[in-house]
Amino acid sequence: MTNTPVAVIASLGSGSLISWLKKATFSALVARGAASVKALAEEINAASQPIRVAVHNATHGVWKPFLDITPEDVQGVAQTNLEGAFAFSKNVIQTFQVNQVDEKGKRGSLIFTGATASVRGNVTTSAFSAGKHALRALSQSLTKEFGKQNIHVSHAIIDGGILTDSARGRRNNPEWEQNEDVRLSLDGIAESYLHLIKQPCSAWTWELDLRPAHEKW
Amino acid sequence: MTNTPVAVIASLGSGSLISWLKKATFSALVARGAASVKALAEEINAASQPIRVAVHNATHGVWKPFLDITPEDVQGVAQTNLEGAFAFSKNVIQTFQVNQVDEKGKRGSLIFTGATASVRGNVTTSAFSAGKHALRALSQSLTKEFGKQNIHVSHAIIDGGILTDSARGRRNNPEWEQNEDVRLSLDGIAESYLHLIKQPCSAWTWELDLRPAHEKW
Amino acid sequence: MTNTPVAVIASLGSGSLISWLKKATFSALVARGAASVKALAEEINAASQPIRVAVHNATHGVWKPFLDITPEDVQGVAQTNLEGAFAFSKNVIQTFQVNQVDEKGKRGSLIFTGATASVRGNVTTSAFSAGKHALRALSQSLTKEFGKQNIHVSHAIIDGGILTDSARGRRNNPEWEQNEDVRLSLDGIAESYLHLIKQPCSAWTWELDLRPAHEKW
Amino acid sequence: MTNTPVAVIASLGSGSLISWLKKATFSALVARGAASVKALAEEINAASQPIRVAVHNATHGVWKPFLDITPEDVQGVAQTNLEGAFAFSKNVIQTFQVNQVDEKGKRGSLIFTGATASVRGNVTTSAFSAGKHALRALSQSLTKEFGKQNIHVSHAIIDGGILTDSARGRRNNPEWEQNEDVRLSLDGIAESYLHLIKQPCSAWTWELDLRPAHEKW
Repeated sequence: MTNTPVAVIASLGSGSLISWLKKATFSALVARGAASVKALAEEINAASQPIRVAVHNATHGVWKPFLDITPEDVQGVAQTNLEGAFAFSKNVIQTFQVNQVDEKGKRGSLIFTGATASVRGNVTTSAFSAGKHALRALSQSLTKEFGKQNIHVSHAIIDGGILTDSARGRRNNPEWEQNEDVRLSLDGIAESYLHLIKQPCSAWTWELDLRPAHEKW
Repeated sequence: MTNTPVAVIASLGSGSLISWLKKATFSALVARGAASVKALAEEINAASQPIRVAVHNATHGVWKPFLDITPEDVQGVAQTNLEGAFAFSKNVIQTFQVNQVDEKGKRGSLIFTGATASVRGNVTTSAFSAGKHALRALSQSLTKEFGKQNIHVSHAIIDGGILTDSARGRRNNPEWEQNEDVRLSLDGIAESYLHLIKQPCSAWTWELDLRPAHEKW
Repeated sequence: MTNTPVAVIASLGSGSLISWLKKATFSALVARGAASVKALAEEINAASQPIRVAVHNATHGVWKPFLDITPEDVQGVAQTNLEGAFAFSKNVIQTFQVNQVDEKGKRGSLIFTGATASVRGNVTTSAFSAGKHALRALSQSLTKEFGKQNIHVSHAIIDGGILTDSARGRRNNPEWEQNEDVRLSLDGIAESYLHLIKQPCSAWTWELDLRPAHEKW
Repeated sequence: MTNTPVAVIASLGSGSLISWLKKATFSALVARGAASVKALAEEINAASQPIRVAVHNATHGVWKPFLDITPEDVQGVAQTNLEGAFAFSKNVIQTFQVNQVDEKGKRGSLIFTGATASVRGNVTTSAFSAGKHALRALSQSLTKEFGKQNIHVSHAIIDGGILTDSARGRRNNPEWEQNEDVRLSLDGIAESYLHLIKQPCSAWTWELDLRPAHEKW
C-alpha cells in the first residue's frame, strides 16, 4: 500500500485497524471507548494540522443467545454505538465544517466501520447487530445532510475474519494466517479506506463491502 | 375489522395504536415508556390468561438537524429503542416460552412497529432512524432464534401519516382525515397486525410494509 | 382458511399454488406459460364478472452452475419473467382500470410470487435470481405508479419448500410432509394472499415474506 | 487520475464510460450491443495479452409510463440485460479462468455498471429497473460462485447524472457542467473502477455506490 500522508486523523475505537492506520499512513489522534470522546475532542482542538480524516471503529462486541444478554450488555452497546458515535460524529462534523474545501472538493472524510451485522440480524447477534444497524443509519443520515457541505461520510461493511494480533493468538492457525484468500488483512482494508478518502466530490461512495475472495456469503 | 379475541396482549408504547388495539380487539396490558418495563413485567405475571400477543410501539421521536441533537436526545433513543426494547422482549419471550403451542402452531406473537426510518436514514432522522434500525435488527435476530421454538416475531414498517387524535389536532385538515387513500388508519394497521397474529406456523411473515394507497415513496 | 369468494381471478403460472387458489377460493382463469398471455387476455375479456384479483406465479426454474446455463435457459427466463410478466401485468392493469373502486377502496389486487432469490443472488441461482429480481422491480414500479389509481400491487417472498403434490413425490419424506413447522403449505400462503387482497386502501402492503417457523435463514 | 496500465480490457456497452476507459487508461476491446457479444468473443480470443479486466456498461434505456411500454421495449431489455449480459459474462469468466493468479491474488476483474434502478423500482422505470435488478442478481451470483476461483465480480451503483458529451448537448447547462458537486465525472467513476480492479484478494468489494457530493437521495 502506498504510504500517502493524509493530514491528521481522529479516530474512535480500540481495534488494531486504527493502530495500523496510525502507524502506516497517518499521523493520528486515537481515543478508546465512549468515555474518551471528550479527551479526543480536546486533542482535536489542539492538533497542529487541520483534521481531514476520521475513522469510527469502536464496537461493543456482544455475541450471546438472546436470553443471556444482560442490561449491562445492552447499555454497553447503547453507549458505544449510539451515545459515543453521536458525540464523536458531532465533534468530527464541526471540525470539518471549518476546513477549506481541498483539491478533491472535500472538507473531510468520516468512515464508519460496519459488519455483516450492520445489514442482518441473526441468532446470537441481537445486541451486536442492533448497535451496528444504528451506526449504519447514523452514517446514512450524515451523508445525506452533510454531503451538501462537501463532507464525505462512508460506511464499510467488513465481512469476514481480520488478521490482527489478537486473531493470530486466538486462532493459532498458521494456514489461515498465510492464506490471503480466506481472511481480511489490515492492509487490504486500509487501501479501500484510503480510496474513500481520496474520492473526488463528483463521484463518492456511501457504502461498500469488504471480504476475502473465498468468503462464503 | 372482525372483533376477534386474541387472549391477553402485553404492549410497550404510548401511542394510540396500542390504545386502539386495547379497546377494539384485545384485553391488554399496556405500559408506557422504558421505565415501565418492570411494571409491565409484574402485570404480565399477574395476568389471569396466558399472554399470547405482545406489541412494541414505543418510540423516542427525535427529528432534528444533526447538530441540534443533544446527548439527552440520544440517551432517550438508547433507553427506548435499545434498553427498553431488549428488556420488554426478554419478558415477552420468557412469557411465551411457557405457553403451550396453540392450534396455529404458535406459543405467541411479538410485533415490532417500525417506520420508513427503519430501513433508511435521512436528513433530520439520524437519531430516530438509528433507534428504528436497532429495533429492526433486534426483531430479525429474535425471529431467527425463537422461530424454532414456535415464537413468531414480526416487524411492520409503517410508512405514512396515521390518523390519530393527536394527528387530527395537529394537522387540522378535514380533507386529509376523510381521504382514506392518503393516510393510515388504526383500523387498517390493526387488521394486518391481527393477520400476523393468526398466521399458521407453516407460512409466517417477519416483515411487511403498510402505507396508504396514494403515498409517494 | 375461510372460503371467501373474491370475484374472478386471472393468473399466470403453472404451479399448484394457483390450482389451489382456483379450487378452494376463487373462480379463476388460469393460463400457463408466457405463450398463453394472449389466451388469458381473451378469457379476461370474456369473463362474466369483473376481474378483481390477479396472481403471477409463473417462473422458469433454472438452477445450474453458471457455466452450464445455456442461451435457451436465459431466453426462457427472459420470456417468463420479463416478456410474459410485462404482458400479463399490462392486461391486468388495464382490466382493473375500468373497475369501480370497491368497499376496500380498490380497483383490484395483483400479487407477484417471489422467492429468496428475489432479493439475493447465489451460487447456482444466477439465472433464476436474475428473473426473480426483475419481477420484484416490476412489482415495485407498478405499486408506485398505480397505487394512485387504487390498484394494489404486492410481492410475496416465499422462502422455503412448499408442500405440493410434486414436492411430495420428489421428496418422499412423510416426516417433512407432516411437520408444518418445516415446510410451507398452500393453505398458509393463500391465507396471506387473501389478506393482501382484503387490505383496505388506508394500509396496504407492497412486500411480505413467508416461511415456515423453523426455516433457517 | 493516474494513468495505470491494466492489461487489456474487454467491454460490453456503448456509453462514453467505456470509451473513456479505453482512451485514458486501458487498451480496450469494446463491443456494442448484445448482437456483438460474438464479435467481442472473437476479439478476446485474438488479443495479444491476457484479458484481466472486463466492464459491462450496456443498457437498454426505457423510461416510460408502464402502459406505454411495448413488447419491443421489453425484448430490448431482455436481450441487453439478460441474454447479452449472460453471454458476455460467460466469455469473460472462461477467459479469466485460464489466467494465472496475479500479484493481487486475482485471475481477473469483472465490473457491472448499475444505477439507482438496480435497487429500486419506480414510476417510469418498470422496464429499466427490471433489467438493472436482473444484472445486479447476476453480478452477486457470479461473485459468490467465482470468488473461490479468485475471479472478482463487482457491481457499481451509479446514482446521478454523468458529464458525457451527450449529456452536455442535451442539458446545455454550463453551470451544471462546471460544478463537480452536482454531476458525476467519467474521471471520478473510473478512479473507483480502477480501485476495484486493484483491490487485493484479502479485501475486495462486491458493491459500492457512486454519486456527486450534493446529490439528493
